[in-house]
Amino acid sequence: LKIVECVANFSEGRNRRVVDAISEAIAGTPGVAVLDESLDADHHRSVITFAGAPDTIGTGAIRAVAEAVELIDLNFHSGVHPRIGAADVVPFVPVAGVDLADCAEIAVEIGREIWERLRVPVYLYEAAARNRSRAALEKVRRGGFEVLRTEIEVDPERRPDFGEPRLHPTAGATVVGARKFLIAYNVNLKSPDANIARAIARKIRASSGGFPNVKAMGLFLESRGQAQVSMNLTDYEVTPIHVVYAAIEHEAAAHGVEIADSELIGLIPRRAMENTTEHFLKLRNFRAQSIVETRIAELL
Amino acid sequence: LKIVECVANFSEGRNRRVVDAISEAIAGTPGVAVLDESLDADHHRSVITFAGAPDTIGTGAIRAVAEAVELIDLNFHSGVHPRIGAADVVPFVPVAGVDLADCAEIAVEIGREIWERLRVPVYLYEAAARNRSRAALEKVRRGGFEVLRTEIEVDPERRPDFGEPRLHPTAGATVVGARKFLIAYNVNLKSPDANIARAIARKIRASSGGFPNVKAMGLFLESRGQAQVSMNLTDYEVTPIHVVYAAIEHEAAAHGVEIADSELIGLIPRRAMENTTEHFLKLRNFRAQSIVETRIAELL
Repeated sequence: LKIVECVANFSEGRNRRVVDAISEAIAGTPGVAVLDESLDADHHRSVITFAGAPDTIGTGAIRAVAEAVELIDLNFHSGVHPRIGAADVVPFVPVAGVDLADCAEIAVEIGREIWERLRVPVYLYEAAARNRSRAALEKVRRGGFEVLRTEIEVDPERRPDFGEPRLHPTAGATVVGARKFLIAYNVNLKSPDANIARAIARKIRASSGGFPNVKAMGLFLESRGQAQVSMNLTDYEVTPIHVVYAAIEHEAAAHGVEIADSELIGLIPRRAMENTTEHFLKLRNFRAQSIVETRIAELL
Repeated sequence: LKIVECVANFSEGRNRRVVDAISEAIAGTPGVAVLDESLDADHHRSVITFAGAPDTIGTGAIRAVAEAVELIDLNFHSGVHPRIGAADVVPFVPVAGVDLADCAEIAVEIGREIWERLRVPVYLYEAAARNRSRAALEKVRRGGFEVLRTEIEVDPERRPDFGEPRLHPTAGATVVGARKFLIAYNVNLKSPDANIARAIARKIRASSGGFPNVKAMGLFLESRGQAQVSMNLTDYEVTPIHVVYAAIEHEAAAHGVEIADSELIGLIPRRAMENTTEHFLKLRNFRAQSIVETRIAELL
């Protein structure tokens, strides 16, 4: 069984009808199933996770981007999270029977199709990147829609991989790529002070000397009146969730602040959950086969 | 799909060949799969967990008991854990498509067969108990093999449900029953003092006013030089593992002792692991469907 997951990010996190319409467009694709839909009003952003076979997942992705281009106008969009497109990021992720290279091939093909059919310029990132200097998503998205609008036309470094060097007037550009499974994980603080969240983010993220495979930024959540450390954990086996959680707890305490709660955006691999329990309980003999459902599924 | 689990406890935790022979006898039953085998040298006890359909699981259980009767002589057995039989306890547990009453029926039938075919007297306990006063396992096992040997012959209260009031000379008696899924969970202390473990056990167990659905006792583990709080958590939704762990940590600290580590004996339901992670990370939006493998299994 070959399964590819697509974790598409859209610049709409407040109007559920828009996000539902995109989900429906995806779910209408034979052989593709929507796994999760997460909206965030503060980020003004949503993540739809869907999965299917390597030869069907791309059709689901194209339909999703087409729907987003139709329904989302970035000129009227604001939010605390960086973005450059209505369909902002479309990564393909290997889940079963496929590898990263297979997903990169899908990304290149779908990237070309997004430009050809929808006239949205496309950047390829991570494992699908053609231009190594912009493999990292944050580089591609630097300055957001408003800055890219000018720079795409004048800076050869910011030329898209597919399409003319001009943003789509309402849908901007889309970043398409392939990457490993990533855990989108946010920790909310019992404080409204985004500066504390930003200071913590700087301490823990790889780019400023923190933990490997951690991307982090600090934000203020209007709807909750709380500061948030918003993260991507790109390899939970190298840097597990509980390590990040403990570090944030420690750094926050140095600012006299406690953790309010934390949240997953989208999905988490089972093993990441199990690792966390194993750590907190100091379990000395835990194996995946210790879980009755896992063991029965293996054997019966 | 109907699945019954049997979590059989045997009075042999040191000689792996004996336990393997019992496992093989079980695994040779068509439609029955061995899920787990746990040996403990200090308890001098093993737990073999196996599963199958309602009409095959009993055959696996009979074969297991027959093998244990053949290979284990309780007259040469010592250990820190209470026991009355070579095949000490044989509970049937509903896993899928069956309920506790179905498992109680299986227990009664298999209990009768153990007596008739192997001449080992049988006590019925928990959901299969005919004598309410001894539904609790600790009542049935009171005093262990050595005390029961005399009392079974003279005390009408200790008459078995099946068989003559006389222990099998080498295999003792077997307790057969039906119960809900139970987590066998031990916490090991950084101290050799079994009195501390016993004091903690008294604080946390239901029978002395602690947490509901917690059975606990304190032991000394010769092989590790550590004291242990050995537990059965009979309803992890009422009293979750993390609650018990935190309470033991707290009580131990009052004695100036830390937790060394903890361990599962046999299997744990997935939901119990997930609850624990959810608690420790203060996850505010966790659902079983947040786990990618669970979600994909549901949909594809």
